[in-house]
Amino acid sequence: MPIQAVVDQLKNTEAAQLDRLCDWLKIPSISTDKAYADDVRKAAQWARDRLQEIGVDAALRETGASGEPGHPIVFAEHPGSASYKGPHVLFYGHYDVQPVDPLDLWKSPPFEPVVADGRITARGSCDDKGQVASFLEALRAWKEATGEIPIRLTILLEGEEESGSVNLDRFLNENKAELGKADFCLISDTGMLGPDEPAITYGVRGLAYTEITLHGPDQDLHSGLWGGRVPNPINELTKVLAQLWDEDRRVVLPGFYEGVRELTPEERKAWADLGFDQIAALRKIGLGPEADVGEKGFTAMEREWARPTCDINGIWGGYQGEGAKTVIASHASAKVSFRLVDDQDPERVTKLFKTWLEERTPPGCRWEFISHSGGPPATAHTDSPYLAAARTALESASGKHAALIKSGGSIPVVGLFKTVCGLETVLMGFGLDDDRVHSPNEKFDIACFNLGACAHANLIDELTRMG
Amino acid sequence: MPIQAVVDQLKNTEAAQLDRLCDWLKIPSISTDKAYADDVRKAAQWARDRLQEIGVDAALRETGASGEPGHPIVFAEHPGSASYKGPHVLFYGHYDVQPVDPLDLWKSPPFEPVVADGRITARGSCDDKGQVASFLEALRAWKEATGEIPIRLTILLEGEEESGSVNLDRFLNENKAELGKADFCLISDTGMLGPDEPAITYGVRGLAYTEITLHGPDQDLHSGLWGGRVPNPINELTKVLAQLWDEDRRVVLPGFYEGVRELTPEERKAWADLGFDQIAALRKIGLGPEADVGEKGFTAMEREWARPTCDINGIWGGYQGEGAKTVIASHASAKVSFRLVDDQDPERVTKLFKTWLEERTPPGCRWEFISHSGGPPATAHTDSPYLAAARTALESASGKHAALIKSGGSIPVVGLFKTVCGLETVLMGFGLDDDRVHSPNEKFDIACFNLGACAHANLIDELTRMG
Repeated sequence: MPIQAVVDQLKNTEAAQLDRLCDWLKIPSISTDKAYADDVRKAAQWARDRLQEIGVDAALRETGASGEPGHPIVFAEHPGSASYKGPHVLFYGHYDVQPVDPLDLWKSPPFEPVVADGRITARGSCDDKGQVASFLEALRAWKEATGEIPIRLTILLEGEEESGSVNLDRFLNENKAELGKADFCLISDTGMLGPDEPAITYGVRGLAYTEITLHGPDQDLHSGLWGGRVPNPINELTKVLAQLWDEDRRVVLPGFYEGVRELTPEERKAWADLGFDQIAALRKIGLGPEADVGEKGFTAMEREWARPTCDINGIWGGYQGEGAKTVIASHASAKVSFRLVDDQDPERVTKLFKTWLEERTPPGCRWEFISHSGGPPATAHTDSPYLAAARTALESASGKHAALIKSGGSIPVVGLFKTVCGLETVLMGFGLDDDRVHSPNEKFDIACFNLGACAHANLIDELTRMG
Repeated sequence: MPIQAVVDQLKNTEAAQLDRLCDWLKIPSISTDKAYADDVRKAAQWARDRLQEIGVDAALRETGASGEPGHPIVFAEHPGSASYKGPHVLFYGHYDVQPVDPLDLWKSPPFEPVVADGRITARGSCDDKGQVASFLEALRAWKEATGEIPIRLTILLEGEEESGSVNLDRFLNENKAELGKADFCLISDTGMLGPDEPAITYGVRGLAYTEITLHGPDQDLHSGLWGGRVPNPINELTKVLAQLWDEDRRVVLPGFYEGVRELTPEERKAWADLGFDQIAALRKIGLGPEADVGEKGFTAMEREWARPTCDINGIWGGYQGEGAKTVIASHASAKVSFRLVDDQDPERVTKLFKTWLEERTPPGCRWEFISHSGGPPATAHTDSPYLAAARTALESASGKHAALIKSGGSIPVVGLFKTVCGLETVLMGFGLDDDRVHSPNEKFDIACFNLGACAHANLIDELTRMG
């Protein structure tokens, strides 16, 4: 059985696999900050070179338009073995990472990976370089153990997932004939339910992310001479933003819940049976049970997986330095995002928010509105044969039952593959709740990394027996 | 008449006076930022040296306690001429300045004074080095024209007015026997009603300035995985702060208005007769007439001079950089200050606010509360002979009617001189509404500077004929 040789090969090369991952993690591929553009490209080249090493035809494809260059996509195509009759897989991952601030909270520098205590700590270790690497290592093990990578495969590694995937839509549209030849999309950028609780994700939330600035006076003012005489943009911004939620913590934008599907009794029961412990999860982030708040009438799991939300991700205005400055600022800003589910449309929600703000413009003020990015939500069919293959592979690799779950996070490409290329996506991910993705001290458990490589190797095996 | 010789001397030395002021303005005496401590001291030494040059016995007095050094006070005493029978004047001013951020909005560097187009542009040009200099130049002109400074005088120049006057209370208490020998306090740190509308200020607002932080989770969280499952400190902070005002824009803290005196019909009429044009004032800061908002039932002038307010002077939390970061921040902060009037007590208001916040602590969150500074409001008697002398001097110098007004700004020392030393304060100031104090491109009109020097010289003359 070739799969046994592949699994043995993975076991025998664990140290080398970690070394390779660390090399990749050392490259600070922060896509949202233009200062790191060269590093983003280096991280793309690193992935291309590793694919070429194992005989996969990989290259960088440039992105961007109208004088605004984007980060490159690593694109690879592999025909598979001559005898392969299984589905054509499109593997998607991203090699860019989140910013690292606040830097002073990191216990080790974010781009100097630390392998210790069963985990690898670095920005991107879990999200998403570590998970992508678990797939690349499965391919390498097949090549090294059997001399070939048997499946028909297209690989697309994006460099702008953490900065809104601004060029992905165009890329998919320009290449949709080619990409549409695949049978399904495979992504490893989600999580398990726990260290011994593997899971396949069949739905992700969408995102509409905006930045708003409220402009008042054309200059900063002395709060003694002007306090009480003019609208203070910070006062006024808080008064508007505070109206975004009602007492049941529902979002108040009229029409916001259009496209949200009702949870079925079966879904609610299946999720309840997973035995998720929200109170324990809160404890891990320093919060007591009283912090279990969210939209009224839904459990924490339902709120994360199946309900839309609105969060202010950043806010700023006026004096933020040491001591006291008695100023009325000329303007105040906030980053406001909406997580969306099911059939909600990010563009429509962005418009609803803009209109809602305009209807609440404080006297004498004006809004500046930027739509940073968005991605549609997506939910796959649970009777997909590819989903079944992935579940079998994951159960073989882990020796455990694999649950079917959804994710509160947004992977815009899942919606794009559906709408542009007509592909459904199977999300087989290996992150854990305490991986601190997007936070200081992001980590990835080595056991999760190894499970990922083994499950991907098993999935390749399953696919060779389909068709 | 000696006063004519003094006025002539002022006329003949205008260029030298501006040169001296520019030398002082070049020293970046930002008291709120510890990085500028040496410069603050240099600015104090500069003033001491100028006083010594004209025969006034001046020295630096150190401040601070328990290992926390303060900025020095420039302290000077002058006996006056042997024949002087008038009141003993305590002149107060401050030589520290506000921070300069946002620096990119300055058209010339804040500490490289530009004298052009009838104005001097630099941080501190009006608030308060320029106004203090107008008094120092009056002393110098008396010395140079008549050989002596005739009045009995104490001078106290503070270096911490812009950072909360944290050491002034102790200094006044330690020296109150000495300071209490004065008959009244004279300050030049306020404004006129317009270029041809000189005024004496008989009341100032007080201040209570706080910094609050709302802490939630002990780490930043991914807004996809956690959005809808935990309290978001930025969401929650805006929801609490937005409750600070009611629909009539009154501050809602229970008991907040205790100590606020009712405006008398006479006061309201006198102020209305001043013909203040709020709409024109708004136009100068880029706002239309719809921006004339504030506490319901009061004119703009009444709101500024006689009504307390609450302003958020700064707010920050989460991601403020370029692009999108999908984070739920672990905490969010704001600087919140209250302008107070009449007999309101800053310490009491600070406590009211703290209690009010605690009663609204969002689930799972906790408050961090800092009281940065405060100063009591103060209103003087309109029948004071010193106020009359100042009014006469100002009318002699300007050839115009001098109005009796109040100020919305806070000069904590006015309250302290009253409570600690039993002294009332006459505020004869020369600023204009468009001087951009506390903002980029602060300026002081040269005509105002010259009027200040001439009015102070005339006041010295008036005082020699009292007693």
